[in-house]
Amino acid sequence: MAGTEVTNRKITLKRYVEGWPKESDLELVTTKEKLELRGEKDLIVRVLYLSCDPFLRWNMSKTQDPYAPPFAPGEPIAGYALGKVLLSSDPNFKEGDIVSGLMEWADYAHRYTQRPNSLTKVGAEGVPLSYYLGILGMPGFTAYAGFFKVCEPKKGETIYVSAAAGAVGQMVGQFAKAFGCRVVGSAGSPRKVDLLKSKFGYDEAFNYKEENDLDAALKRYCPGGIDMYFENVGGKMLDAVLLNIKDHGRIAVCGMISQYNKEEPDPIYNLTNLIKRRVKMQGFLINDYNEDVQPEFLKNVTEWYKEGKVHYVEDLAVGLEKAPAAFIGMLEGKNVGKQSVKVSDP
Amino acid sequence: MAGTEVTNRKITLKRYVEGWPKESDLELVTTKEKLELRGEKDLIVRVLYLSCDPFLRWNMSKTQDPYAPPFAPGEPIAGYALGKVLLSSDPNFKEGDIVSGLMEWADYAHRYTQRPNSLTKVGAEGVPLSYYLGILGMPGFTAYAGFFKVCEPKKGETIYVSAAAGAVGQMVGQFAKAFGCRVVGSAGSPRKVDLLKSKFGYDEAFNYKEENDLDAALKRYCPGGIDMYFENVGGKMLDAVLLNIKDHGRIAVCGMISQYNKEEPDPIYNLTNLIKRRVKMQGFLINDYNEDVQPEFLKNVTEWYKEGKVHYVEDLAVGLEKAPAAFIGMLEGKNVGKQSVKVSDP
Repeated sequence: MAGTEVTNRKITLKRYVEGWPKESDLELVTTKEKLELRGEKDLIVRVLYLSCDPFLRWNMSKTQDPYAPPFAPGEPIAGYALGKVLLSSDPNFKEGDIVSGLMEWADYAHRYTQRPNSLTKVGAEGVPLSYYLGILGMPGFTAYAGFFKVCEPKKGETIYVSAAAGAVGQMVGQFAKAFGCRVVGSAGSPRKVDLLKSKFGYDEAFNYKEENDLDAALKRYCPGGIDMYFENVGGKMLDAVLLNIKDHGRIAVCGMISQYNKEEPDPIYNLTNLIKRRVKMQGFLINDYNEDVQPEFLKNVTEWYKEGKVHYVEDLAVGLEKAPAAFIGMLEGKNVGKQSVKVSDP
Repeated sequence: MAGTEVTNRKITLKRYVEGWPKESDLELVTTKEKLELRGEKDLIVRVLYLSCDPFLRWNMSKTQDPYAPPFAPGEPIAGYALGKVLLSSDPNFKEGDIVSGLMEWADYAHRYTQRPNSLTKVGAEGVPLSYYLGILGMPGFTAYAGFFKVCEPKKGETIYVSAAAGAVGQMVGQFAKAFGCRVVGSAGSPRKVDLLKSKFGYDEAFNYKEENDLDAALKRYCPGGIDMYFENVGGKMLDAVLLNIKDHGRIAVCGMISQYNKEEPDPIYNLTNLIKRRVKMQGFLINDYNEDVQPEFLKNVTEWYKEGKVHYVEDLAVGLEKAPAAFIGMLEGKNVGKQSVKVSDP
């Protein structure tokens, strides 16, 4: 294998993105490469699946944000992905291992030097591999840590989840339902709303695009108020939730996807309610929970999945060349379920 | 005493307030009254001191807010106050006791029936009585619970306090300094800024009215960023703090005085920083801490005061008739230190 010359395709950032990304902001570049390890602790993987995650939009802006350093124009996008090890100079990984972690969007990728420790071996009997980018990957873990550790739920409480059919939202709703909460979700199409109730067990679900008055919608679906809000969208939805949050409410701030493509973010007006209602708003990233919570998450959710207690819906594009459209479609809400891209068979 | 006829003056709400309150929204009403107890567990007190607290503005709006039910037009304002018991049908209180709690703004007041349990006996040798409306009262307790319980401080961290010379802010800064934090504060006049450094031990202080760019000011005075923000003002200041808050920062949301007189609140744009920086924003009211924290607060702060470890500056208006102007002046930031009103000698 070592020394083999392959045709490698990569998805690169053509130019920094302002506002909504266009497919032309990304570019498929084809090169010939020799598969040769670069010193110690390198790996070369055949990329199997890519995950289209909203946070990648952060890294496409020119802003020098230490929390999301920009990709360089001309360089490949890198995100969560699965790969099969072809070559390894790291004794912890050997040929044939299936690994999950940050990788370049390519057919073949070296270990991602900016986050070399993100790689872990994955796989369990009876679990489709791509699930390690979703229910058993970063989005599932985000839902798990956000719900159990940030929301600090109590049985019988009402949780409201925005982007509820997405990669994270679908898991939050199911974890909350299994835990014993009343679960209300919103999404952006009738098909997604149907999925929330028929597949994920949400008690109530609505299409936010059909609601002129989000405050009124929340009062209709959460007549007793909201104990916990799992925040995935930001903007006007957050402002409406602040009008309906209950005393001692918790807002787990996971993402604000409605804001990522705006040149000027939406204004928020109702934060004074945090005081009178003694609300906690907590932003979080799963990196902070890796060591403590990850093993518990993997054990529990693998079990729940195998027992049929939680379901998972993914939206799989096929072919590396489809990645730009899949990513942009996900930002636009076109996906139904977790958006991933299949690059090759294992 | 019982049956004595007295001339009683009361400060009443003349009309609901919209925007900035005017003195003409409040009215001094004089009546003749017989001092007669109303059944069991009543008290009649001679009012000694009134506290001018920002939250009273909430109760002057027409809005039927369950968290701040409006005063009825024609009825007296009621707020935190000190009184001396003249008559009592409650065995827990006897003539001559000095009590603190919610009372009508008047010369003579019955027990406040909407919050009858707010009354406690106060007093300690060597502590001026009016201090029980400030350093040893609701504002001091707010500072104590907010700093120690909500901010969860670590030694060496930087805390930024807005309205830092006010009733709550002056205590937060001193508690934080004594605890071992770097303390930065802002206020709205040169005299207050001087007080912050010369009296309250703030490491850095600035006049926010002299800063065109609050973000730049915070970067200058908190060059390493802000670990904790004690939020008293809201609006543009909060938005600037969100640009300067550090990873795992905590924002204790105590008040948003800049917003209370606005028909439309200021927009907040920078909440997405909550996510990347994993920030906790926690609104709080001291009612939630009464039982657990109040005894510890009273013991510690009385001790610190007597040892000269914490100082207290109050701004005392004299005469019940001065209460409306004192209250409005406090909202405008005219006071230097905690604004109270002396109604009568004990």
